[in-house]
Amino acid sequence: MEKYVYLFSEGNKDMRDILGGKGANLAEMVNMGLPVPKGFTITTEACNKYYKDNQTLDKIIEEEINDAIERLEAVTGKKVGGMTNPLLLSVRSGSPISMPGMMDTILNLGLNDDIAEKMAKDKDSIRFIYDSYRRLIMMFADVVRGYSKDEFEKIIADIKEEKNYTSDLDLTAEDMYDIAMESKKVYRKLVKEEFPQNPKIQLMEAVKAVFRSWNTERAKVYRKMNNISETLGTAVNVQEMVYGNLTNDSLTGVVFSRNPSNGEKDLYGEYLEKAQGEDIVSGVRTPKDINDLKKEYPKIYKDLKDISKLLEKHYKDMQDMEFTVEKGKLYMLQTRSGKRTTLAALKIAINMVEEKLIKKEEALMRIEPDKLEEVLHPSFDKEALKKANMIAIGLPASPGASIGQIYFTVEDVINAKKEGKNPILVRVETSPEDIEGMSTAVGILTVRGGMTSHAAVVARAMGKCCVCGCHEVFIDERHKTMICGDNTFEEGTTISLNGTTGRVYEGEVALSESGIDEAFETFMSWAVNTKKIGVMANADTEKDAEVALSFGAEGIGLCRTEHMFFEEDKIFAMRKMIVASNSEEREKALKELLPMQMLDFQNLFRVMNHKKVIIRFLDPPLHEFLPKTKEEITVLAKSLKITDEELTLKIESLKEFNPMMGHRGCRLAITYPEIAVMQTRAIIEAAIRVTKDGCEVYPELMIPLVSDVNEFKYLKDIIKETATDIMDKYKVNIPYEIGTMIEIPRSAVMSDEIAKEAEFFSYGTNDLTQMTYGFSRDDAGTFLNDYYEKGIFKHDLFKTIDTSGVGKLLDVSIKLARKTRPTMQLGICGEHGGDGKSVEFCHKIGLDYVSCSPYRVPIAILAAAQAVIKENN
Amino acid sequence: MEKYVYLFSEGNKDMRDILGGKGANLAEMVNMGLPVPKGFTITTEACNKYYKDNQTLDKIIEEEINDAIERLEAVTGKKVGGMTNPLLLSVRSGSPISMPGMMDTILNLGLNDDIAEKMAKDKDSIRFIYDSYRRLIMMFADVVRGYSKDEFEKIIADIKEEKNYTSDLDLTAEDMYDIAMESKKVYRKLVKEEFPQNPKIQLMEAVKAVFRSWNTERAKVYRKMNNISETLGTAVNVQEMVYGNLTNDSLTGVVFSRNPSNGEKDLYGEYLEKAQGEDIVSGVRTPKDINDLKKEYPKIYKDLKDISKLLEKHYKDMQDMEFTVEKGKLYMLQTRSGKRTTLAALKIAINMVEEKLIKKEEALMRIEPDKLEEVLHPSFDKEALKKANMIAIGLPASPGASIGQIYFTVEDVINAKKEGKNPILVRVETSPEDIEGMSTAVGILTVRGGMTSHAAVVARAMGKCCVCGCHEVFIDERHKTMICGDNTFEEGTTISLNGTTGRVYEGEVALSESGIDEAFETFMSWAVNTKKIGVMANADTEKDAEVALSFGAEGIGLCRTEHMFFEEDKIFAMRKMIVASNSEEREKALKELLPMQMLDFQNLFRVMNHKKVIIRFLDPPLHEFLPKTKEEITVLAKSLKITDEELTLKIESLKEFNPMMGHRGCRLAITYPEIAVMQTRAIIEAAIRVTKDGCEVYPELMIPLVSDVNEFKYLKDIIKETATDIMDKYKVNIPYEIGTMIEIPRSAVMSDEIAKEAEFFSYGTNDLTQMTYGFSRDDAGTFLNDYYEKGIFKHDLFKTIDTSGVGKLLDVSIKLARKTRPTMQLGICGEHGGDGKSVEFCHKIGLDYVSCSPYRVPIAILAAAQAVIKENN
Repeated sequence: MEKYVYLFSEGNKDMRDILGGKGANLAEMVNMGLPVPKGFTITTEACNKYYKDNQTLDKIIEEEINDAIERLEAVTGKKVGGMTNPLLLSVRSGSPISMPGMMDTILNLGLNDDIAEKMAKDKDSIRFIYDSYRRLIMMFADVVRGYSKDEFEKIIADIKEEKNYTSDLDLTAEDMYDIAMESKKVYRKLVKEEFPQNPKIQLMEAVKAVFRSWNTERAKVYRKMNNISETLGTAVNVQEMVYGNLTNDSLTGVVFSRNPSNGEKDLYGEYLEKAQGEDIVSGVRTPKDINDLKKEYPKIYKDLKDISKLLEKHYKDMQDMEFTVEKGKLYMLQTRSGKRTTLAALKIAINMVEEKLIKKEEALMRIEPDKLEEVLHPSFDKEALKKANMIAIGLPASPGASIGQIYFTVEDVINAKKEGKNPILVRVETSPEDIEGMSTAVGILTVRGGMTSHAAVVARAMGKCCVCGCHEVFIDERHKTMICGDNTFEEGTTISLNGTTGRVYEGEVALSESGIDEAFETFMSWAVNTKKIGVMANADTEKDAEVALSFGAEGIGLCRTEHMFFEEDKIFAMRKMIVASNSEEREKALKELLPMQMLDFQNLFRVMNHKKVIIRFLDPPLHEFLPKTKEEITVLAKSLKITDEELTLKIESLKEFNPMMGHRGCRLAITYPEIAVMQTRAIIEAAIRVTKDGCEVYPELMIPLVSDVNEFKYLKDIIKETATDIMDKYKVNIPYEIGTMIEIPRSAVMSDEIAKEAEFFSYGTNDLTQMTYGFSRDDAGTFLNDYYEKGIFKHDLFKTIDTSGVGKLLDVSIKLARKTRPTMQLGICGEHGGDGKSVEFCHKIGLDYVSCSPYRVPIAILAAAQAVIKENN
Repeated sequence: MEKYVYLFSEGNKDMRDILGGKGANLAEMVNMGLPVPKGFTITTEACNKYYKDNQTLDKIIEEEINDAIERLEAVTGKKVGGMTNPLLLSVRSGSPISMPGMMDTILNLGLNDDIAEKMAKDKDSIRFIYDSYRRLIMMFADVVRGYSKDEFEKIIADIKEEKNYTSDLDLTAEDMYDIAMESKKVYRKLVKEEFPQNPKIQLMEAVKAVFRSWNTERAKVYRKMNNISETLGTAVNVQEMVYGNLTNDSLTGVVFSRNPSNGEKDLYGEYLEKAQGEDIVSGVRTPKDINDLKKEYPKIYKDLKDISKLLEKHYKDMQDMEFTVEKGKLYMLQTRSGKRTTLAALKIAINMVEEKLIKKEEALMRIEPDKLEEVLHPSFDKEALKKANMIAIGLPASPGASIGQIYFTVEDVINAKKEGKNPILVRVETSPEDIEGMSTAVGILTVRGGMTSHAAVVARAMGKCCVCGCHEVFIDERHKTMICGDNTFEEGTTISLNGTTGRVYEGEVALSESGIDEAFETFMSWAVNTKKIGVMANADTEKDAEVALSFGAEGIGLCRTEHMFFEEDKIFAMRKMIVASNSEEREKALKELLPMQMLDFQNLFRVMNHKKVIIRFLDPPLHEFLPKTKEEITVLAKSLKITDEELTLKIESLKEFNPMMGHRGCRLAITYPEIAVMQTRAIIEAAIRVTKDGCEVYPELMIPLVSDVNEFKYLKDIIKETATDIMDKYKVNIPYEIGTMIEIPRSAVMSDEIAKEAEFFSYGTNDLTQMTYGFSRDDAGTFLNDYYEKGIFKHDLFKTIDTSGVGKLLDVSIKLARKTRPTMQLGICGEHGGDGKSVEFCHKIGLDYVSCSPYRVPIAILAAAQAVIKENN
């Protein structure tokens, strides 16, 4: 038979699924012999049954609760509803996964008119008892009956005003009595019934109310945001009340076994004398630092410290504890693994390994890979963020935090920089002309464009903080102002940009300290030694490559050659190539581009000495490179010796209905093989030059967007011929491979065929996800929110790979490819390569490496290490 | 050991792979005892070896040729290079698949100065011999050495001018001698060597030249156009010359065993007296009708007729024969299955079944399904087309032929119609406003838009001839003219539109007769009785449905509800729905649409009494329905009581980067469930109403563009609830199913999951092909031509299904679906459903039905029948 209620002494920490986190840990502490107020836990299964039974409490559960109460009365020697020694209770929620502040609590249950009167013996106790009683009435009205606390709080406010009190502490015993009585009246008025005097009824109603609080809107939203299952349910902890506000030697506090902000090994926390837990949270009084406890209550401090050590050793993790001291006696109300900054998590994990509390593998498992982002990019201080004034929200296009002054043109940005400002470039959208401004600015904010817009792609490549598609911002270019709602911001105004969340703040928000230090290096070295899968970086310039190497990248998994063209002089030559009306003109323009691209490759190869560099041939639709403004068109037209009109027509003719599914990728080089010839020349000649300088280079040439082996074969032949010619000419042999990106569903299911020709595969899971789902990331914003809200999709497919659909295609492709070419190098270079869960999946399905943006290399390394550890367990 | 040369007597008709078509049939005729000039065939393998050996003739082959010559000399009693009885030879190409006119022929080989002199005995023979000799020299220079015939023909022209001759017949024996001698001089001048006097050398050079002609540019283009493999190679037929131009009782002709144009059972053909085969082709003299032969040469006519019958009986097919009569003796030079119009093919097949020459199955195999299109739509007469003046070429958007007068606005089209004209609507592109004009016009021509543009989709649905994306046409709206190149066409000018080829002609091109007659009906009834797979139609209106039924459709496989909104009053309500700023406004607009849509469904259901109707929920991106011109915006804004500016902004906000991968399909109904509710109501209420009238309806509700089972489940629940409510209200039960379209790669690989919820699948292979390949049909035009030219793709993927990639996804999906739901109904409703080869594939992979546009239903039925026949053989 199902058991729905457990005394604390019957549970343990491994029962969190049914007892909830709080209940399981209270039970564990009881078993450890620690001072815990006595109590019991009603299980999550009781909660689920409550919902299954149409929100009624089954008789069986009620009986079990009554039974538990009796046993509680036996051990405490107190009695619920008893006149001499009444048992007062707290009722607290506690789900298997912590949802702080989301669900309800009721304290002081068991009080009623008679008991209060009986307990109130002197002034002090009158004040205390009626304060407790009026709190119960208010909480009961709020949590159980669903009426706002406002009218109850107004009673106190009125009395304070009437009597000119400045603080709650001024309230006398009589005042408290009056307030309690007035509260009962308000309760009657609101609820249309008397406040229930029967403590058992109070208790059962409170239990049901906590169950109900599992399903409030805010709880549901929280679960959705945090990927917590709806079916878990919450447990309810019923516990004897202890009062931190009873006497002068009573107090209550919260303490961490180590510093959760920087990981230092010392108690960290605060406490309030003569107070209950909620007083700390409410922030009405300023709590004291836990170090003061050492001086003022050395015995309690020592006990707390001992318990803290014991719990840490027991749980093998930093603990976040709640405690109350009633009349000098310490009670532990809660313990759990403490939340901490990633920085602190790193330090704590490393220290605990040194302390031999945990092994290296455990330490590696302690940090969620994606959280490493916090220490890699500058980030805002969490407390400061809470107080900051958010003025707009856009897409988190490139992570990090930047503080600076807004400017609306590249010129203004550059001038501001010269004047010592930290300019933030604010544009409707960016185009290749803005590159210099983007690289000069400390951050970028755009009104239009998605996660793959020009601004987003370039900013990520630069590792620069960027918020995109911030539709709430209106730019008045003429007056050089930015308007958000009712606020107008002049040029030069300081704002703070959070590229990790997409939020924009007024003024300067404080930054938190950076986390790349010795601890980080140590931690990462453990991860590197543990992981099996390779980790490479997506990098297009020598600067990117240097960052990637510093973070531990083993090579370049994706060098996007088109990004090399985004600088001003190159873009001009590129445009001439695009609008060429015949292959002669095109070859002339390509001839201009060749030396520039060759130099870029030489620089890249030198940085990547002895390492692999996978270079992707020109990929995006050509019109992305074309000028947009009238002025730019005029300049280009002049240099081409054609009219503006002719050029505009040419640009128009390159526009596509669905550019993502248009003339791009290998399709460009099939139409214009001279592009592939130029790029091959640039790569091979650059390799030859740096080889002559003593470098060792391993270029791998990658043909994008292949859907059929014939496309690949056609270009492979051209590339091979070109490469052979050059190597023959210079009499230098460069070892190189020619492979392809698998980013189209067809190439996934045809991988056996394609592997006959291609020497390596790199999975481009961004495009593959788009094509497999049939939606474009740039457009999906309009409907994906509905999907998340309606529970149709659970998570962002572009962040974490869809293992069932896209994953099936990857799996099919890998098997087909290895059937044809067993030792073929297979990797992934989509953004998923830098996502923890996705890296784990890549490890599982047998990829050789993942490649991601330089700043996500440590994340991928850690995720790869964790995948191995999980596999071994 | 490989054998490279076969005497005719050693071959037979089944050896066409190595002897070529002509060689195999000559051998067969020899075996049948028919009069064929003696000869032998050099195999296609010899041709391939020639290319493998870097265009040299292997000694072994040369020896075999010499050997064959010796055997030929033995049977003819003549000798190559012999002075008394010289053996003169023809050398003709003949590949396994006929490529008429593509490769080269040389006649009169074996002549040289000495032999000519020896053979020339009197005036007549001098004239004949030197005419033959000069032809040999000219052909040899042309075919073997690669010099144009021009200079040789100039010799004759010069003499004729000098002597004031009006015809070649005026040339005397002396003239011919002179011309031959002059030709030798020209040969020497051009080739820089003497014309070779050694007949063996002439022969070997001629054989090599024929091999080389396999690889001329035009031959390669022809093979690409006709999907003929490059590796086949050509055989070479070496044959004793017979001369239709030798004496007055010599003649040459071409004859079909039945009429290739209408199928009538009578000899059909023409002949020329005193002529060689090439004279008929050149068209210098007008040939006589074969019926004249009956009168003038009754014996030869009778022999020819007997041979024709014999060959038909032997080959069980209508024959196309070449013959020559030399000095009253009939020789057969070639026989092959004759090309014929589809109309003739139908008649001939049916007649041959009646004559017990072939079985019904054989008759069904005689017609390529796609060719049926010719008899279903009006089509232009082929001869007339050759002479017509093409003025532009666009996309063959909707097949058929139409002749009419051009007009540029809907109003003008309607007025022209009233005046008794046959208006053709010419527009830059069409929009829903143009519907009335489109339905009034006899044909539609647009400048912009692809095969899935509004014009194309609507025209196909209407079965109306349409040419789209005709970029060469420039419309001057102000002057109401259309400009193509240098020509300007005024409003009202007559043009002819070929929707089957995308070609536009000046003036009126003659039409050929229609082919839907008793023979067609008989033929189709055989096909229906043979096929196994179901054939349904894509039809959106009762009119479409009626056409579909008349062509034998078994139900509607795809009713596109959005097409029902394309009429003016509906589009207006539709627009109000789209630009609604909240769900109240939206529901109000939907309420307007409901009765209209319900009426449409009622009409459709009545036509489809007792049959299945699969109805797809709203699918295309909403902005496709929005107004484009300023005037339309003003009208809509006024009725919505908002400003033009606000409406324009709203329209702008609905624009997408990649509309094909945007907010469409089930994504619309997930955002706006009220649309699904309205459509469900319209369907179920309509079904209830017609059921009450005694109709039996089987609506199947189809949710488009599903990528995940959760999307389907969400909408299915809404639809079910709505349907149940209505059925409860009316107390009528309508049997209905809810299924989905599989048109996104992910839903194909997740079909087991989706089949848990969906009751049927319909494969939307248009979108599936686009998503699987990652290219949009609207944009692919810019690069697919390069693909075809470079041999990367062999055929149009949107016409014939890609069996390897898309086909693999279909196969995977079918297996997964049937695993979950074994008896699930699976069909295809993409355009491939009306393509012969694709239907065969659908049969093979086990689909239950195909659905295609009404006019392609017979094509699908025939293809389905052929699939069964092929399977049984």
